[in-house]
Amino acid sequence: MRPDGRPIDQLRPIQVTRNFTKTAPGSVLWQQGSTMLLCTASVSRDLPPWMKDDRPGGWVTCDYVMLPGSTPQRKPWPKTGHTDGRGTEIQRIIGRSLRAAVDLSKIGPHTIALDCQVLQADGGTRTAAICGAWVALADALAALPKDLPGAMTEPPAGGAIPARRDPKYYDPAGALVEQIAAVSVGIIEGEVRLDLDYYDDSRAEVDLNLAMTGNGRFVEIQGSSEQGAGFDQSRLMEMITLGTAGCRQLLEVQRNAR
Amino acid sequence: MRPDGRPIDQLRPIQVTRNFTKTAPGSVLWQQGSTMLLCTASVSRDLPPWMKDDRPGGWVTCDYVMLPGSTPQRKPWPKTGHTDGRGTEIQRIIGRSLRAAVDLSKIGPHTIALDCQVLQADGGTRTAAICGAWVALADALAALPKDLPGAMTEPPAGGAIPARRDPKYYDPAGALVEQIAAVSVGIIEGEVRLDLDYYDDSRAEVDLNLAMTGNGRFVEIQGSSEQGAGFDQSRLMEMITLGTAGCRQLLEVQRNAR
Amino acid sequence: MRPDGRPIDQLRPIQVTRNFTKTAPGSVLWQQGSTMLLCTASVSRDLPPWMKDDRPGGWVTCDYVMLPGSTPQRKPWPKTGHTDGRGTEIQRIIGRSLRAAVDLSKIGPHTIALDCQVLQADGGTRTAAICGAWVALADALAALPKDLPGAMTEPPAGGAIPARRDPKYYDPAGALVEQIAAVSVGIIEGEVRLDLDYYDDSRAEVDLNLAMTGNGRFVEIQGSSEQGAGFDQSRLMEMITLGTAGCRQLLEVQRNAR
Amino acid sequence: MRPDGRPIDQLRPIQVTRNFTKTAPGSVLWQQGSTMLLCTASVSRDLPPWMKDDRPGGWVTCDYVMLPGSTPQRKPWPKTGHTDGRGTEIQRIIGRSLRAAVDLSKIGPHTIALDCQVLQADGGTRTAAICGAWVALADALAALPKDLPGAMTEPPAGGAIPARRDPKYYDPAGALVEQIAAVSVGIIEGEVRLDLDYYDDSRAEVDLNLAMTGNGRFVEIQGSSEQGAGFDQSRLMEMITLGTAGCRQLLEVQRNAR
Amino acid sequence: MRPDGRPIDQLRPIQVTRNFTKTAPGSVLWQQGSTMLLCTASVSRDLPPWMKDDRPGGWVTCDYVMLPGSTPQRKPWPKTGHTDGRGTEIQRIIGRSLRAAVDLSKIGPHTIALDCQVLQADGGTRTAAICGAWVALADALAALPKDLPGAMTEPPAGGAIPARRDPKYYDPAGALVEQIAAVSVGIIEGEVRLDLDYYDDSRAEVDLNLAMTGNGRFVEIQGSSEQGAGFDQSRLMEMITLGTAGCRQLLEVQRNAR
Amino acid sequence: MRPDGRPIDQLRPIQVTRNFTKTAPGSVLWQQGSTMLLCTASVSRDLPPWMKDDRPGGWVTCDYVMLPGSTPQRKPWPKTGHTDGRGTEIQRIIGRSLRAAVDLSKIGPHTIALDCQVLQADGGTRTAAICGAWVALADALAALPKDLPGAMTEPPAGGAIPARRDPKYYDPAGALVEQIAAVSVGIIEGEVRLDLDYYDDSRAEVDLNLAMTGNGRFVEIQGSSEQGAGFDQSRLMEMITLGTAGCRQLLEVQRNAR
Repeated sequence: MRPDGRPIDQLRPIQVTRNFTKTAPGSVLWQQGSTMLLCTASVSRDLPPWMKDDRPGGWVTCDYVMLPGSTPQRKPWPKTGHTDGRGTEIQRIIGRSLRAAVDLSKIGPHTIALDCQVLQADGGTRTAAICGAWVALADALAALPKDLPGAMTEPPAGGAIPARRDPKYYDPAGALVEQIAAVSVGIIEGEVRLDLDYYDDSRAEVDLNLAMTGNGRFVEIQGSSEQGAGFDQSRLMEMITLGTAGCRQLLEVQRNAR
Repeated sequence: MRPDGRPIDQLRPIQVTRNFTKTAPGSVLWQQGSTMLLCTASVSRDLPPWMKDDRPGGWVTCDYVMLPGSTPQRKPWPKTGHTDGRGTEIQRIIGRSLRAAVDLSKIGPHTIALDCQVLQADGGTRTAAICGAWVALADALAALPKDLPGAMTEPPAGGAIPARRDPKYYDPAGALVEQIAAVSVGIIEGEVRLDLDYYDDSRAEVDLNLAMTGNGRFVEIQGSSEQGAGFDQSRLMEMITLGTAGCRQLLEVQRNAR
Repeated sequence: MRPDGRPIDQLRPIQVTRNFTKTAPGSVLWQQGSTMLLCTASVSRDLPPWMKDDRPGGWVTCDYVMLPGSTPQRKPWPKTGHTDGRGTEIQRIIGRSLRAAVDLSKIGPHTIALDCQVLQADGGTRTAAICGAWVALADALAALPKDLPGAMTEPPAGGAIPARRDPKYYDPAGALVEQIAAVSVGIIEGEVRLDLDYYDDSRAEVDLNLAMTGNGRFVEIQGSSEQGAGFDQSRLMEMITLGTAGCRQLLEVQRNAR
Repeated sequence: MRPDGRPIDQLRPIQVTRNFTKTAPGSVLWQQGSTMLLCTASVSRDLPPWMKDDRPGGWVTCDYVMLPGSTPQRKPWPKTGHTDGRGTEIQRIIGRSLRAAVDLSKIGPHTIALDCQVLQADGGTRTAAICGAWVALADALAALPKDLPGAMTEPPAGGAIPARRDPKYYDPAGALVEQIAAVSVGIIEGEVRLDLDYYDDSRAEVDLNLAMTGNGRFVEIQGSSEQGAGFDQSRLMEMITLGTAGCRQLLEVQRNAR
Repeated sequence: MRPDGRPIDQLRPIQVTRNFTKTAPGSVLWQQGSTMLLCTASVSRDLPPWMKDDRPGGWVTCDYVMLPGSTPQRKPWPKTGHTDGRGTEIQRIIGRSLRAAVDLSKIGPHTIALDCQVLQADGGTRTAAICGAWVALADALAALPKDLPGAMTEPPAGGAIPARRDPKYYDPAGALVEQIAAVSVGIIEGEVRLDLDYYDDSRAEVDLNLAMTGNGRFVEIQGSSEQGAGFDQSRLMEMITLGTAGCRQLLEVQRNAR
Repeated sequence: MRPDGRPIDQLRPIQVTRNFTKTAPGSVLWQQGSTMLLCTASVSRDLPPWMKDDRPGGWVTCDYVMLPGSTPQRKPWPKTGHTDGRGTEIQRIIGRSLRAAVDLSKIGPHTIALDCQVLQADGGTRTAAICGAWVALADALAALPKDLPGAMTEPPAGGAIPARRDPKYYDPAGALVEQIAAVSVGIIEGEVRLDLDYYDDSRAEVDLNLAMTGNGRFVEIQGSSEQGAGFDQSRLMEMITLGTAGCRQLLEVQRNAR
């Protein structure tokens, strides 16, 4: 049992508020225990420069920012830029996980920008961000117009170059190909625990983050044992089993929220 | 009448949620129509370098940031730093206004950092930030410990150097010396209007922001007529009168929220 | 009376040197007491990216910089960029004030860059910058060629889209639509004073800056009471009255200099 | 079989040159196929600011940089800073892995800076960096002076504060507590392969990096499936098994090099 | 003869205005033909971090900046920082040249900051900066107080450590040990010319800058032949001879200005 | 004789390894005593923005970076950017020197980027960089394709606009027009010495760098006497004579390496 009385295999209580704001087509307030994030998904017709010519379809980006007041000791804005090294690592993990949810070739020349802002940090912000951002992403995809002027919606009959490689191919209804949820697990005082809050996280010998699709396949796994003596394969399996169970519950929470 | 049917002398509906988060001692979600901000007030014992030696007491800083998803067309993070030129101008105005609320000589060697994050922008974000940040500031001051080790709480009898000039002088209960609220007024189609939303703001010939104390004294006034032909003294008076009335209502809203 | 014996309603002696340098079409050395600025106005055919498509005409930008040797204690260059937060706030105010002088739709696709460099700072640099930059701006507009290849100088007869909304519309002789001057006023030891030098400014309870057109209309008003208890409407009126009188004299100085 | 004829469970040929340069106490040229890195380990007596007071012992940092000429299409230096988002993520992974090798409480107030420069990139640079940096780190620790003025080398008998928590405690001979090696594995065309070069990496459906101690415990695991449909637990096990075997060979290569 | 009729061995007309501003103890407006610079010398008691412990005496720094309006086509401020690569190269050359003028061990723990701002650029700005900055430097040294609290002004009798190696040693009257002037020479259309203006400079096959002490010794020589086929030793001698003559005249100009 | 027994007119032993890496078409490891650099030359079809319209042919750029482990006391990466002021000055000198080797009008719209990375610093890195970069540059030019689609390889008969001013003119075989080598000389303890290592460099009263073409013409000369009392013309001649002899040997070394 943990200080908050929560069994080691139990998630914290989760509350999902869709459409928390209205300016972005996807906007989710994700609360998991005391961890609280605002995840928005915005759509634009700008593409990153490296995409314009040689890749079909669109792109999904992610920015992860901890607001200064999200920690008991205020976290100052970095001197240059808006996020630090840790935030850069995290936003790359979130971006990779969420791109797995989308068939990028179907969204036409759009960039979907996911912005994950931590309003209150109590551990597990990167996995909560993945969960909340997926809901925002799904809402933003649903809000894409059904028709796009000049778009190609059908593969040409017997075409040598498949239409889906055409930058103009557009099928937003079919773009959301996976559901993605994520959770953290860890070893604290020799015990494998699910969904670490700050208390657990700061004591963890091992910290493992798992992102999983709706049908139980991993898209991201990232585990570290910074201070300790590492972990063996059997411990890894225990963590993966517990994390898999946690992800299944989170996938359910996401589905209920939509 | 405006598109939303609101009379020209009426504020938008306001909702104030104190303790929206718990990591910062002051945390206020300020909603004014569709404009929504999270204002937090954090306390630390660091002082800015220029203060350490030659100024008594503490300091109040302000950061103003528009989150990327707060506007219909996503506002990207700036290339360097976390806010742009407009944000820099605004956070200086907010900081000056709120410093007027505090007797800095009474808070001992503390910095109170006000962080105003725009979650949704629909006009009037700088004045809403002042209103929300004042509530957060008041909550943070109330949370300061009554006793500070080593602090001087009484002026020495007949001292040549007044105690309040001593960096260690500390009287948090007496530090909140003013209540501060702010509102925007403007001239749209020749008409003086209170509390401009984006629709009004984007059409305004003149835009004036007023910050006022609880007893009706101005601490900041800032008005511009960028495109138009300016405004004369009588129009200025009309705006000030309307803005004063608006500030009085906002001061009431703040008092009711505490 | 102030330390320099100047009555409270008197401007400091002003000296205006046009064409101080010859590389920029407008170049003014503005000396007001010990405050000394070099204001240049340069013209280019680059437009800011956000203008190119959806706005007719040109643009006016402003950069305000204090040179390191302009203060008794050297002001180091900022770590990143060329001006600090205070400078950013000031250059936005100057830019807005001076854009009110120009009918931007008449200058064709030109950017006029105003560069205000403080060579010596003794209070009132932002208002002196507005005064000097207006003279430089007027000189630069006068230097625009009368004919621009490809420009449209006449509205098409009965055209649905007025020519002045065409990016190519060009009428430099008619572009300078307002004269703009600015001055600071303040309350020092309870007394309303005009044109504050550093001695006054550092003691001021209230500091108000006014920018005004040639026919006496305000285009920018910005007043602060950082440390004090604010100011009431009657004091504001006194300051505005004194500032208006000061602006009228400055408008005269500008006219005499041209 | 891969284009280079290498079986799927075989490492690329590895060449380790210790003392490639002499300015840094650890300096290793690590060549693994066509991937080539220079890893140096430098020692200084500076500590990061957050360490000075409240943590005993020293610290290990890592910088990972790809030199511009290391890729066929030149990789320009970033506009600000010396590494990009990808490099930031990688250097954090390397740093965590290598800190697991050291008992930081035994190195006294030293920072060991690991600098991993990619001279030629052909896949697997982050894991090659971990392998090479460990050799450089071990050499740098061996070069630490046996005697440090003022250091405490023995725990005081029955001391209430254990000596190893004292910032000055110093036992460099005992500081290297783990050997660390790392390797990449992936799934390419449905096949699990060891030690991906660029050809494999650019085609991989899944890419997994493993860092392991000398006695076979994991300290870092990081796997992604950006474009594909994820991977299941049985595939993960296959990758871990193959990666474990690869790490054991790399540990052997490291030992032979010393 | 050049377009302005000036013989190839003749300097442009020079005008030196000392005390152009009063905030800095040295302030010189240096005009050489149409090239115009403001050179200020400020004194502070801050030392660069690397000096504080291990070097006696003080330091001289230099910043070189071209103001945006100093060129016919406006030179924008750089995106980051206040000077570009060319400016960085130039300010290092100026700093080295001027440090040769000062016995740094005699100025006590002071930094003298030289700020060279180009107001109008017409070739030869770096050498004009050296000339003007030397006059400003000399004025600033002369303004140093004769007595500095805690300074050591006499070597201790028979001391093992000479007083001049003591950071507190202070003898400002003896600190200005050299006079320094500089000039450019070049080869234009096969002809060696003195003091290149922009017309010459933009056509020069070779460009050589010379800085020289009052008694005719070189402290800096820097010559380039970017586009051409280089220059041989005899041409170099011609340039040096002409440059030496030019420097002698400039040294005279400087002396007359003081 | 110097500490290493080397006569004052003798170069350090030099080792040149071409094709040290294979990703860049030119890649040279240049070792001169203990100074060691990796110089790569990469080719791209991007041109700097200022070139695209108004200059024929291509461009050569240079970046000079000291890796952190290249000095006994680790050199940290700068806070912003990838090289410091000294590096900026040096890379400008290298770039100018190497551009003299190329007929830029003959390489078509290509940029050749020279990247000089100091792996180990023991004095003379800038001149070693010039030597090594020339070999890399020559190798990169030799690797340019003989035919470029759309290129113009013959001047049009009697054309008004010479073909070599056409951006498409392309004759890579004729582009390498000069061989360039460079060396440092200096005065140490009154003695003129060739090819200074760190021991000499840190004691030098005067430090002079010479870059020279294959037929003995100077393209860059840069000498400084920061601390000392300068140098006269006869000393300069001695240094130039010794440096010329050194360059001739280096030119020989380069030729032997190709």
